[in-house]
Amino acid sequence: MNQKRIAIFGSTGSIGTQALDVIAANPDLFSAEILTAQTNDELLIKQALTFNPNVVVIGDERKYNTVKEALAHTDVKVFAGEKALIEAAAMDCYDMMLAAIVGYAGLKPTLMAISNGKAIGLANKETLVVAGDIVVNMAMEKKVPIIPVDSEHSAIFQCLVGEGRNKIEKIILTASGGPFLGKKPNFLVNVKRDHALQHPNWSMGAKISIDSATLMNKGLEMIEAKWLFNLRPEQIEVLVHAQSIIHSMVQFEDGSLKAQMGLPDMKLPIQYAMAFPERIPNNFPRYDFRKPNTLTFEEPDTKTFRNLALATDALYKGGNMPCILNAANEIAVFAFLRNRIGFLDMTEVVEQTMQKTHFIEKPTLEEYFESDGEARNFAASLIHM
Amino acid sequence: MNQKRIAIFGSTGSIGTQALDVIAANPDLFSAEILTAQTNDELLIKQALTFNPNVVVIGDERKYNTVKEALAHTDVKVFAGEKALIEAAAMDCYDMMLAAIVGYAGLKPTLMAISNGKAIGLANKETLVVAGDIVVNMAMEKKVPIIPVDSEHSAIFQCLVGEGRNKIEKIILTASGGPFLGKKPNFLVNVKRDHALQHPNWSMGAKISIDSATLMNKGLEMIEAKWLFNLRPEQIEVLVHAQSIIHSMVQFEDGSLKAQMGLPDMKLPIQYAMAFPERIPNNFPRYDFRKPNTLTFEEPDTKTFRNLALATDALYKGGNMPCILNAANEIAVFAFLRNRIGFLDMTEVVEQTMQKTHFIEKPTLEEYFESDGEARNFAASLIHM
Repeated sequence: MNQKRIAIFGSTGSIGTQALDVIAANPDLFSAEILTAQTNDELLIKQALTFNPNVVVIGDERKYNTVKEALAHTDVKVFAGEKALIEAAAMDCYDMMLAAIVGYAGLKPTLMAISNGKAIGLANKETLVVAGDIVVNMAMEKKVPIIPVDSEHSAIFQCLVGEGRNKIEKIILTASGGPFLGKKPNFLVNVKRDHALQHPNWSMGAKISIDSATLMNKGLEMIEAKWLFNLRPEQIEVLVHAQSIIHSMVQFEDGSLKAQMGLPDMKLPIQYAMAFPERIPNNFPRYDFRKPNTLTFEEPDTKTFRNLALATDALYKGGNMPCILNAANEIAVFAFLRNRIGFLDMTEVVEQTMQKTHFIEKPTLEEYFESDGEARNFAASLIHM
Repeated sequence: MNQKRIAIFGSTGSIGTQALDVIAANPDLFSAEILTAQTNDELLIKQALTFNPNVVVIGDERKYNTVKEALAHTDVKVFAGEKALIEAAAMDCYDMMLAAIVGYAGLKPTLMAISNGKAIGLANKETLVVAGDIVVNMAMEKKVPIIPVDSEHSAIFQCLVGEGRNKIEKIILTASGGPFLGKKPNFLVNVKRDHALQHPNWSMGAKISIDSATLMNKGLEMIEAKWLFNLRPEQIEVLVHAQSIIHSMVQFEDGSLKAQMGLPDMKLPIQYAMAFPERIPNNFPRYDFRKPNTLTFEEPDTKTFRNLALATDALYKGGNMPCILNAANEIAVFAFLRNRIGFLDMTEVVEQTMQKTHFIEKPTLEEYFESDGEARNFAASLIHM
């Protein structure tokens, strides 16, 4: 394998830092050419000094001078602001973008990377949730591979290699159930931020940890899977599997199921996406079936975790509805993380925003942007009440 | 897919009859061109009248006339005897041999089919257990694909498609544990034929059902896997998984595990081998994860089920030791099925035969045949005592 030049968009987050660990462990295989962060200038500087990238971008323009000065004695080019993010994605100095920016903010740089013909390692599911049709069509047109980094979608991707034209009957996205598996609304109504952030199996960023606790994450994953694997909504199932060992499954038209499994460790799907189609030997801990163990499965409780039902509605409805769902959810999660609203209020915000935002069946990219803004404004107005 | 012409060697057994069900369900995809049976003339005649093959062979020469007369009004060519089996394998009228003869008897026709350049759907694991190096080398030389039909090996094969040069760290062969899972020697010593034939999950022939009850089947599968997937002995693990839903697993060098799963139904791996690389839609019952269910895993009890330890020894020892193991086991199982020896005696027969038969490190094919005969004679002498 030739050295692959990686652009990590969102290098200071959970996915980004683990991707840099993979690069550090495999310097012959990978180099970090672009690093970007929204606000964490300190870590971005440290990463730049370690990995000596071509370019760094700090999203928050107020931090430009700090970063610029800290890297003044190096060759690293420093830029700042949202526009610089998109300009960096348009550069030629990299082969693959690891799209690890959190939320809607990841969409525009990713679209630019695709139109720039760069392979995508997609950790930012919102890119597909918000504007999946446009992203997928552009990738097809540009012959750009989108390799998923989400553990569930990586599992399905791994199960599909070599299957050629063999048809998928359905996919089964496994869900840990999050920290509140088995709980009912009378418990959830009092749940606080710090408790919701404690995922039982996975170590992740704040936004996705909350989404896992509400099961919105699984709903977003259903929508992401639709676009990644060209599925009809009824081909996508969710199954609670509390141990998070089976990362997801594919059932083919002959009834055969394939699953990808392992310890819950994001480094594996990150490394897989970066190295695909090769696998890199490593010393990550292995799951040990020889220790007494049991894998359990059950249906999700969508009456308690209503976010999953709302996301399923958005999946079936299509158009700009997933974009609205995502925008409202981002606002709601942000408010919950700031202790502005309660755990169950997040669902209320999403549901009302879905009801009140203007529905468009076949939006243009511009209309997606508008729907996102409209939904955010409406969701925010609910919270400020 | 062009119509594939199938030669079913062992068409009246459990695998053979299910393969004919697959052909009957997919007449555009498959035709049955050769059917062979050892003794069941009645069913062979019925199959020939239904499927109108080019050739039938009845192993038992005393039944030649019965078969010949029953098919006199058809175009079906009728042959009899062991030599005719090999001659049929040398014919050009088929594309793939489904090697479903039970035991050592399947070796010579399969070798002939390979040297004849025909694809092999391998249900006869003894072919690889007895003379794996010779079979695999000949298949490589003739560029003949060997597609496993055993559910475990089919699972691993399915997990390996599309993985290219990605290296296997280990495989995990799952074992139901058979009807006596959890039992101890003081129970097993009194086990009778009819009880041992009742497998909890799989419907199979008599020989393999007994081998499953003693775990010898899993031992033979370890040796089969070594040759099919070019593994070192230490890369092959056995894991008891009582529900038989995960049919086996592969762990790659990056720690990622892939598993193939489904209800225990041999029709799926039979159909998969016949149709590979395509998958054929079907209405076989699906495993339903949404019903409350649990998958369990534990280490095999090789102190109680010593056949598995003996087979592991043979796997590590190599040479003609697996051939000796297999020959002694065939004699022992046959004696047990005729109520001549007890359940635990089978292990004694195998162990003593392994100790007393002449070891050869790199046997020729002729030496494998001789070792088989020597081991059978010795094992039989133990039983006649």
